Amino acid sequence: MSAETLYEHPLNAQVRVYLRLEYLLTQVRNTSSLTEAPQWQVFFKNLFDVIDILEHSQVKRDLLKDLEKQRDRLEAWLQVPDVDTDQLRALVKESQQLQHALLDSPRPGLFFSKDKFLAAIRQRFALPGGTCSFDLPVLHHWLNLPLEKRQADVLTWRRSLMPLENALNFWLRIIRASAPMQSCSVNNGFYQQDTNTEDASLLRVKIAQAYNAFPLISGHRTRFAIRLMPFDEEKEIAPDIAVSLAICS
Amino acid sequence: MSAETLYEHPLNAQVRVYLRLEYLLTQVRNTSSLTEAPQWQVFFKNLFDVIDILEHSQVKRDLLKDLEKQRDRLEAWLQVPDVDTDQLRALVKESQQLQHALLDSPRPGLFFSKDKFLAAIRQRFALPGGTCSFDLPVLHHWLNLPLEKRQADVLTWRRSLMPLENALNFWLRIIRASAPMQSCSVNNGFYQQDTNTEDASLLRVKIAQAYNAFPLISGHRTRFAIRLMPFDEEKEIAPDIAVSLAICS
Repeated sequence: MSAETLYEHPLNAQVRVYLRLEYLLTQVRNTSSLTEAPQWQVFFKNLFDVIDILEHSQVKRDLLKDLEKQRDRLEAWLQVPDVDTDQLRALVKESQQLQHALLDSPRPGLFFSKDKFLAAIRQRFALPGGTCSFDLPVLHHWLNLPLEKRQADVLTWRRSLMPLENALNFWLRIIRASAPMQSCSVNNGFYQQDTNTEDASLLRVKIAQAYNAFPLISGHRTRFAIRLMPFDEEKEIAPDIAVSLAICS
Repeated sequence: MSAETLYEHPLNAQVRVYLRLEYLLTQVRNTSSLTEAPQWQVFFKNLFDVIDILEHSQVKRDLLKDLEKQRDRLEAWLQVPDVDTDQLRALVKESQQLQHALLDSPRPGLFFSKDKFLAAIRQRFALPGGTCSFDLPVLHHWLNLPLEKRQADVLTWRRSLMPLENALNFWLRIIRASAPMQSCSVNNGFYQQDTNTEDASLLRVKIAQAYNAFPLISGHRTRFAIRLMPFDEEKEIAPDIAVSLAICS
């Protein structure tokens, strides 16, 4: 079987924010060792993007609600005969613990508004070349501090986001596992479908890389459409392309 | 001798642009192998910042002029007894070649406005989390292409900037070598000085890391001031700090 690329698309506004935060937090995590030269730039850029999103949305409130809704559904499964009740109960318990940790944590992002160093460098990050040493000597100084000192700072900053990050990762993990991939056929580059549920929240699409095509997806809860585009604009899309789909809720 | 951190500060508007471009192009170069996961983000971010600066300034014109002025000065040195004329002549020749290559090259940045892939992803890069796979499926597709294909694309994009990059690096190398570092003493965190020339273009300051201080520098051609700030705001700056300075022109 040839290599495939997985594309995910949010089917409601909350999940759009969740996916974006997950993507940013993953990059923050993957660069937090600062052991490779370009990591610091990705680290700060994505950290500031996280803060920006937290300042402009009610993620904590939404996620607390969504965890509860998800748990109700997990508990409903407990009534179904022949399910693995031990595993389900463990998930329900994990969800409760994550929800409590999130509930007890200060508003995510609050921590950062009090950090003078982060505030000073954040406003420069959006400018082209704004992190030059002469624009931000304080950052240049920090980058020349011993690695252990910088790693300790990074850990302090990340720690305040952990309750949110852990709850978010759990919620998305369960959502992604909620529906299996199914094959379908895209004719002349176009496919559309009803989701047959009000709760559809995430669409997952796998496409073989051999087609050299990427999907433009639009949709909202009850219905979605996929248009496959040739990456090489001079090529045409194959008339019949097999993709895998999962509608998660 | 303890470790020192070097800070550079431009003393005129052109050098400000040059230093910024040098910083960005260095990061573009250092991440262009794409062999480490976070590199692509730094690569594109800095490439787009370069394009942005090129679109808003006359770097090519300024640099051609400055190369010529610098060459006049190198040639004037040839009249001084006991100088290494072979080395000077080699520098003059190198400067001429770089100037011709820059003169013959298309307007830097022109190349990028014609590249549809870069244009498509560039507009998303400024948004928080805007490079998420669902925002930019075309980028997600590109990131999943074989490494050799991506490296070939990167090389194509970088090649159009090479004449500018090479000329810029040469000009800055000669400027930096134009003045030796000299010791001076910063009293109560403040130091100011006349440059005694209309041509001062770059100030270089070295500070021992042990002071845990960074400089806020202001200045323009004829005069500059340095204020040392404690990185740890609760500490005070030492009354007498030895730093090294070079005023390059």
